[in-house]
Amino acid sequence: MTNDIFLQALLRKPTARTPVWMMRQAGRYLPEYRAIREKVDFLTLCKTPELAAEVTIQPVDIVDVDAAIIFSDILVVPEAMGMHLIIEEGKGGPQFPEPLRTEHAIASLINPDPNDRLKFVMDALRLTRKNLNGRVPLIGFSGSPWTLAAYMVEGHGSRNFRYIKELIYNEPKLAHTLLEKLAKTVAAYLSAQIAAGAQAVQIFDTWGGILTRDAFQEFSLRYIRQVIAETKTNGAPVIVFCKDCGHSLDAIAASGCQAVGLDWTTDIGDARRSIGNIVALQGNMDPTMLYARPERIREEVKSILKKFGKGSGHIFNLGHGILPDIPVDHAKEFIRAVKEESQLYHN
Amino acid sequence: MTNDIFLQALLRKPTARTPVWMMRQAGRYLPEYRAIREKVDFLTLCKTPELAAEVTIQPVDIVDVDAAIIFSDILVVPEAMGMHLIIEEGKGGPQFPEPLRTEHAIASLINPDPNDRLKFVMDALRLTRKNLNGRVPLIGFSGSPWTLAAYMVEGHGSRNFRYIKELIYNEPKLAHTLLEKLAKTVAAYLSAQIAAGAQAVQIFDTWGGILTRDAFQEFSLRYIRQVIAETKTNGAPVIVFCKDCGHSLDAIAASGCQAVGLDWTTDIGDARRSIGNIVALQGNMDPTMLYARPERIREEVKSILKKFGKGSGHIFNLGHGILPDIPVDHAKEFIRAVKEESQLYHN
Repeated sequence: MTNDIFLQALLRKPTARTPVWMMRQAGRYLPEYRAIREKVDFLTLCKTPELAAEVTIQPVDIVDVDAAIIFSDILVVPEAMGMHLIIEEGKGGPQFPEPLRTEHAIASLINPDPNDRLKFVMDALRLTRKNLNGRVPLIGFSGSPWTLAAYMVEGHGSRNFRYIKELIYNEPKLAHTLLEKLAKTVAAYLSAQIAAGAQAVQIFDTWGGILTRDAFQEFSLRYIRQVIAETKTNGAPVIVFCKDCGHSLDAIAASGCQAVGLDWTTDIGDARRSIGNIVALQGNMDPTMLYARPERIREEVKSILKKFGKGSGHIFNLGHGILPDIPVDHAKEFIRAVKEESQLYHN
Repeated sequence: MTNDIFLQALLRKPTARTPVWMMRQAGRYLPEYRAIREKVDFLTLCKTPELAAEVTIQPVDIVDVDAAIIFSDILVVPEAMGMHLIIEEGKGGPQFPEPLRTEHAIASLINPDPNDRLKFVMDALRLTRKNLNGRVPLIGFSGSPWTLAAYMVEGHGSRNFRYIKELIYNEPKLAHTLLEKLAKTVAAYLSAQIAAGAQAVQIFDTWGGILTRDAFQEFSLRYIRQVIAETKTNGAPVIVFCKDCGHSLDAIAASGCQAVGLDWTTDIGDARRSIGNIVALQGNMDPTMLYARPERIREEVKSILKKFGKGSGHIFNLGHGILPDIPVDHAKEFIRAVKEESQLYHN
């Protein structure tokens, strides 16, 4: 592999500089991505391996990131379990027109064979590995069981998450039945992604932060641990990113993962002091910093590098996905700044 | 005063039980409130002291809370500073059709005399005090300078807060000019509320949590400290509620306030151990718990009381405002459960 510093840093091994990639880096801020999306809709793009591989590699070519992450969506998993999914990107987000609201509906979900119903993801991974030709490592991913459950029960993103909260508060056993089913499915899905060529995997817990600390540990983190334990990793590092869960960093670090993703509200210096001897840390610049002037972006990169300090175990990233209206030049400056400024912190 | 345990608990003095009220308790979940709102729009209600006093007292009569909070909206302050405000409750939230985006617009904001341009709030406070006739204490409030600035610059609630972030990242001096002006205005506003009869005041920092810890301290907490220092409190306790700011509890507790409001993602037992010797704590049940069955609500109340433990210095509340579709019976059960179950924790 030409550039494997991303994998080295995940294992906290020495590197010459800090690796960097961006969540949602294959996305709408890139004109080359929008050009493809003009021809096909979002789900067709996910399900056409040639196109998915193409947009996966775009940010490697264009903004020069140190890792590629397979282009897909976390909600293809509930779809594979039998739910009807509609994604109209930029129009209020994905929707399940028939949200999961009954015991019968939960019992009817299938545990899909990922090499059958999610074969398009595996094909895209294989093709991307081939086309990347060892330039940078390839990341696979899944939503966490809790985050998938929240979408499935609400039917869409939500402000208050009334229905999933009612489920866990009024019918915790049924919630656990659903989450157990999702954990099995996600573990099989990540195992298949690794077998198909993913060299690291990330679990996205986008909605962990809507829970109290106790409920987060009972309904989200418990199933992330189960997923990690049941995934056939073959040595591929696992990154866990729980948004707005700064209250449980210790517990997340003890989940069995190799790296913890941080949103921008956690101080990465503090996080390194508390869990940096257990896991690598990924993050954590405020995604809206990319609206700022290039000089200000570089200043923030330097500040985060300084907070983390010397040595390995840091994968630079944003604290959440890159926003669709970020100027490409700002994204490029961010990547360049990390590459240039981080050398000071490595031998 | 018949029932002053709310004020006693704010000062961490002994009480026979834990006092309880709910943020946004004068609101749409009450049929009696909706009946009044059918006759007048939201801003007219804010600006008609007789009606504002009536809805302020409704939750005292109906759900039996231990404190009243004056019915108003944080955005009457920017309106008094010269901005055009539109509030259509339930329809996407308040809007400033001409958001604050230029140095000239910021310079043009006036520092209003609260006894002139916000006289309706003072009249409502005086009338409410009279009509409450000492049954429970009356709370005044304001948005924090940062939260007001975020609304004024965005023009409305936002997902990514692009414009206020651009302001603080690209033009920090101009941001500080705006925040300084807001701090002066908010301090004068709270001073006037206390002079008009508010027996405690709460500063709402709804949007503190969108910032990194460093930016929160520079752009939000600094001005909350200034507001507290410049408010003529005459001994009225100050409560500071910063949503999603669990990373900075120590600094918030050191702001000069008497109590810190907690959202539901902070463990109140941990918070008491870290800052409970400096301030009282207010909170912090998940507002969506009120969708759950009454038995489950009571169980959660017991769990939070147990986490806080024995002794004074806890004002029970939700971790954010009560939601508009909560059944009134559930709100009543919540209040009743706190009153009954908390006696065990007091002598």
